[in-house]
Amino acid sequence: MSLLLTNISELVTVHTPQSGRKTGASMGQLGIISNAAMLVEERIIWIGTQAQADRLFRDRSIERYDCRGRAVMPGFVDSHTHMVFAGNRADEFSQRIRGVSYQQIAARGGGIMATVRATRAASEEELYTAARQLVFSALRHGTTTLEIKTGYGLSVESELKMLRVIAQLAATLPVRIVATLLGAHAVPPEFAQRRDDYIAMLCTELIPEVGRAGLARFCDVFADEGYFTAAEAERILTAGLDWGLQPKIHADEFADVGAASVAIAVGAASADHLLHINPAMIPEFARWRTVATLLPGTAYTLRLPMPPARALIDAGATVALATDCNPGSCLTENIQMVLSLAVQLGGMTIEEAVTAATAHGAAALLLEQDVGSIQVGKYADFLILDSPSIADLVYHFGTNRVAEVWIGGRCVANNSVGNSFL
Amino acid sequence: MSLLLTNISELVTVHTPQSGRKTGASMGQLGIISNAAMLVEERIIWIGTQAQADRLFRDRSIERYDCRGRAVMPGFVDSHTHMVFAGNRADEFSQRIRGVSYQQIAARGGGIMATVRATRAASEEELYTAARQLVFSALRHGTTTLEIKTGYGLSVESELKMLRVIAQLAATLPVRIVATLLGAHAVPPEFAQRRDDYIAMLCTELIPEVGRAGLARFCDVFADEGYFTAAEAERILTAGLDWGLQPKIHADEFADVGAASVAIAVGAASADHLLHINPAMIPEFARWRTVATLLPGTAYTLRLPMPPARALIDAGATVALATDCNPGSCLTENIQMVLSLAVQLGGMTIEEAVTAATAHGAAALLLEQDVGSIQVGKYADFLILDSPSIADLVYHFGTNRVAEVWIGGRCVANNSVGNSFL
Repeated sequence: MSLLLTNISELVTVHTPQSGRKTGASMGQLGIISNAAMLVEERIIWIGTQAQADRLFRDRSIERYDCRGRAVMPGFVDSHTHMVFAGNRADEFSQRIRGVSYQQIAARGGGIMATVRATRAASEEELYTAARQLVFSALRHGTTTLEIKTGYGLSVESELKMLRVIAQLAATLPVRIVATLLGAHAVPPEFAQRRDDYIAMLCTELIPEVGRAGLARFCDVFADEGYFTAAEAERILTAGLDWGLQPKIHADEFADVGAASVAIAVGAASADHLLHINPAMIPEFARWRTVATLLPGTAYTLRLPMPPARALIDAGATVALATDCNPGSCLTENIQMVLSLAVQLGGMTIEEAVTAATAHGAAALLLEQDVGSIQVGKYADFLILDSPSIADLVYHFGTNRVAEVWIGGRCVANNSVGNSFL
Repeated sequence: MSLLLTNISELVTVHTPQSGRKTGASMGQLGIISNAAMLVEERIIWIGTQAQADRLFRDRSIERYDCRGRAVMPGFVDSHTHMVFAGNRADEFSQRIRGVSYQQIAARGGGIMATVRATRAASEEELYTAARQLVFSALRHGTTTLEIKTGYGLSVESELKMLRVIAQLAATLPVRIVATLLGAHAVPPEFAQRRDDYIAMLCTELIPEVGRAGLARFCDVFADEGYFTAAEAERILTAGLDWGLQPKIHADEFADVGAASVAIAVGAASADHLLHINPAMIPEFARWRTVATLLPGTAYTLRLPMPPARALIDAGATVALATDCNPGSCLTENIQMVLSLAVQLGGMTIEEAVTAATAHGAAALLLEQDVGSIQVGKYADFLILDSPSIADLVYHFGTNRVAEVWIGGRCVANNSVGNSFL
């Protein structure tokens, strides 16, 4: 069934990055069509001005939906999250506010290991129920495609449990969900004295099993001081590639360990964080297709300096923004908040931030042919804002500016429903 | 009708500041009762532990409401907003992101004057309809008492129109609304060559009329470079006092013009902004009852350094937090967002931020006897969070952590209603 969306104040189409072309400058161009209309089925059939639509579709009995002068933009693609977990680390958060560092908390058995203990102990159903709330909230804030990583299991059994939960979320919620295996999130305590054995287990047991069963699209490694070295990351990501898992990498968040270089070397879909990227590596991101994914919500939460967005964009890199939603270093599922931080604190323009959280998020998930922009042939995944202007998304901050969320040509969340006094 | 709220994981009571006592240190103590219960009518009748409630009220047929292990805290008191206005300044916002300053925009006829033109042209009904949306959204985010300023009329007629809109909001919405006359928000263009005449008009026409009709509780002045001088502010605030309007002051936001000193001299209820407060004035805020109201959302939006929260609190000042919700320099009605900024960027602890946005906001409105804390005799204005811990309010950021809003012992907003797929 075709549906004609009419009376769109501005249709924000956004440009898809093209492999091997410098994308920095085009991030500032949103390809806005004023007074627009859009014809959709599951995918986008036609876009143009309202006047063109009036002529083209005048005599055809197509169902119409009046957007009432509001802006329409692509659904957000949140390409880096850890939304499946058990337990809560609010206590650690309070400690950090009092000056204890993330690394000190980890040394005391907190940090990732606290969540690993809780996640191992939780049932699949408990994990599903908690994650469902977060995913649903992300959806209501405009996320239509969402990556979720494992990494709180750190054993074959528990990592597979997490992947089954992710699969169940994908099967039961309208959001498009992409699974990433992050068995190399940390070395679990039972392998503390034999980390090579843990890496061997990842490469010869877990990765092959996940690859064979098709349970994940990506393989990721936390390459940083106190986690995995660049050499270990390369070994694990290469094993992933052997089993059809595309590489992603947590790169140089707390220190420059050369992870950005590994990302380029293995042709990773994305290198994420990059708070301490070696400046010499920045131009490389303009030469290769690896997306530089920035997570300003994490820098904000950990009170660290913002990632080098300006330098990367000005060099021509394909920069994406994502939430990093996780119970330790950044608990937000609202990517609009991340746009606000990227603009107010991170030196990006509104247009760059929108591109980074849509088309470039899609590129970081190797999904740029299907989602992330409003383009004929792509899925009809889009948002109707509660404002005539895209600027409102950052201008009016700290609240949800998304009125309606559409996925595959179907409205799946309407935030104005239920907004009345009891 | 009495109602017993049961099964409260933590009841966050918060301390009311006491005149002449240094309050800085007590801001860090939230007076939390674990496993609590609370008996309410329009006001709070009793608070204690669940075990005490079980003994005391065992045999009495009191209606009960199960808080299901969630945290309960006082409703937020947002003591500084400009929520009544017409028009939109998203375009100016986009310019600022590209590097144009707030002052440059004002010099081009933008800034406050852009909103003044739109507000003068708008009907009372248009102003009411737009403001109602913001006030309702503030309510859903937990604000139970709200100050709203005039200042976009800048003529007797238009300022009175704004005050009537504020009165209509107060009469039709459950939020407690306090009106502030801000005729001295800027000198309007028609008085550009004769600013003394404008000030005389304020002191001899507008203030007396507002005072006589009881349309506002406070009189406020924007004392800053390019706006009003310290001497002008003192003259206007003194005129206000003559007509029963208590003084408030926008103090030293862009430059130190001595406004903090005026605030202390006239015994203002609050001095707001203080981004450029003279450091020598900081200890004075510990000696006098004037509340230091900080607005980190504005510093964030204008990309300015954060206000000196730490210095003020450590000196013993009574520090409040408010949104400054306005169309120019800070468009957010969500005070939870302001708490996040105050903690992550402004050096405050979670506990201090909670106190600042509740009990100290009430003190900034001279309402500390009635609202701002959970205390027997005060209005039963409280929030049920969607979490067992108050820390969640800042830990889980960028989304609405308030599940239910209660005012005067009655639930007026329930955010979980309507949260289902279409």
